[in-house]
Amino acid sequence: MTAVKLDGRDVADAVRTRLAAAIAALDFVPALHFVRVGENPASVSYVRGKERLAASLGVASQVHVLPEDASQAAVMNIVQTLNADDAVDGILVQLPLPDHLNPDPLLAAIDPAKDVDGLHPINVGRLWGGQDGLFPCTPLGLIAILKHYDLAIEGQHVVIVGRSNLVGKPATALFLREHGTVTVAHSRTRDLAGVCKQADILVAAVGSPAMITPAMVKVGAAVLDVGLTRVDGAIQGDIHPDVWEVAGYLTPMPGGTGRMTTAMLMENTYRAALSRRETQ
Amino acid sequence: MTAVKLDGRDVADAVRTRLAAAIAALDFVPALHFVRVGENPASVSYVRGKERLAASLGVASQVHVLPEDASQAAVMNIVQTLNADDAVDGILVQLPLPDHLNPDPLLAAIDPAKDVDGLHPINVGRLWGGQDGLFPCTPLGLIAILKHYDLAIEGQHVVIVGRSNLVGKPATALFLREHGTVTVAHSRTRDLAGVCKQADILVAAVGSPAMITPAMVKVGAAVLDVGLTRVDGAIQGDIHPDVWEVAGYLTPMPGGTGRMTTAMLMENTYRAALSRRETQ
Repeated sequence: MTAVKLDGRDVADAVRTRLAAAIAALDFVPALHFVRVGENPASVSYVRGKERLAASLGVASQVHVLPEDASQAAVMNIVQTLNADDAVDGILVQLPLPDHLNPDPLLAAIDPAKDVDGLHPINVGRLWGGQDGLFPCTPLGLIAILKHYDLAIEGQHVVIVGRSNLVGKPATALFLREHGTVTVAHSRTRDLAGVCKQADILVAAVGSPAMITPAMVKVGAAVLDVGLTRVDGAIQGDIHPDVWEVAGYLTPMPGGTGRMTTAMLMENTYRAALSRRETQ
Repeated sequence: MTAVKLDGRDVADAVRTRLAAAIAALDFVPALHFVRVGENPASVSYVRGKERLAASLGVASQVHVLPEDASQAAVMNIVQTLNADDAVDGILVQLPLPDHLNPDPLLAAIDPAKDVDGLHPINVGRLWGGQDGLFPCTPLGLIAILKHYDLAIEGQHVVIVGRSNLVGKPATALFLREHGTVTVAHSRTRDLAGVCKQADILVAAVGSPAMITPAMVKVGAAVLDVGLTRVDGAIQGDIHPDVWEVAGYLTPMPGGTGRMTTAMLMENTYRAALSRRETQ
């Protein structure tokens, strides 16, 4: 068998069309501000992509660039300035930061109402508490892809490989909200192949090229590839290409989950902009 | 085979002995304040038990009782008074509250530094973010029982039945911190028996008497019974008594996990009292 392609571009296009119309109907322009420290090429490229997408949707964006050796206080100062600026709807501190900086206090300093990456402890707490809030974009994108293709989550066994704060853990919360039975596997998991093979929905978010082989995938499963590694200039996911022959549904890499991450960032920016004005 | 009893009383005694000595060595008396609304007999009994334990450990405690029909504003007012009172180290709003009250805003109003139940969104966020904080007592107790009996968690398959904010979800976070592979099952899980039977460590936190039968338990597994239902005046757990013949280790009910919950509440109170003074 050959898996149906879960095309992140198509899903992202649908989100963008909906968002562009919703944003055009607003009587204000939502504003998204990026904080980037240093010139990490991947970060430069990610931020540029997000800026382009913002512009195409009618979201104003601005990038605040600090030198590679910027102090913790300097970054904190920008975050606080953006918190205080009523014209700013969303603040995104691009990760990873240089090693000498501690991201936790910076992420916790962002006004939770402007925290479009959903990494502030308050938003993490709301996510797990079953409340409304701003939640991480990549996991939101996974749910959106499955819903776009009408793939059921309720009652399905979802196996998530990787337990990062950005993907694995918030994805666990969101799949539980959708009534999936969720298993979180990771580097210490014994018999990873056996655990993965139980999955009706398999999410790989490790960053280890082609680590998920066909023998680890149940025939017909929906497989979502979040891992991303640059190997000799090419992008590789966590899913071995031969999994196309076993899975029922699979996201391509690139053109899969990554597309959805930036689309959901715009959705978060739109929601933050609305919700800040509603509560004023 | 007959399971080894994981005696919550023994583990709680060890915690209490350690805590009593640590508290006696302080140059102040930690203060724990309870807010109880109405006269729900279980709540009255729980709070009384916690008060007694506090007294035996040298913790000062006080109960603020509001009438069954107290308004949301009245409860909020007490919480804010206790937040502002520098002599108060821990605040516990006893759940469940009467139906007309919304617990979420009340729990979110407690000063996170005094939140000894670990239910404030900030503490939930810190739990999932891998940071320090005050975390829910029942899940802390589960980990403490396993450690007391030298039962490994790393690499074990932990199945948690129930996804409540009080037990199932925070237990997931704590078992992941201990490097377990964690599956969260619940009422929508298909083949619950098959999922449970994979567990090296099985946690049942549903509140459905004797729902976990021997056929659902792997021979030799460690089984932790958190469910608690009063049936004709007797207390019943989620674990069927015949599981004693299959499991390797099992918590009795009563005398198992409940004992540990109150012990960990005192540990949280002690930690809150210390940490508030360190940061001043």
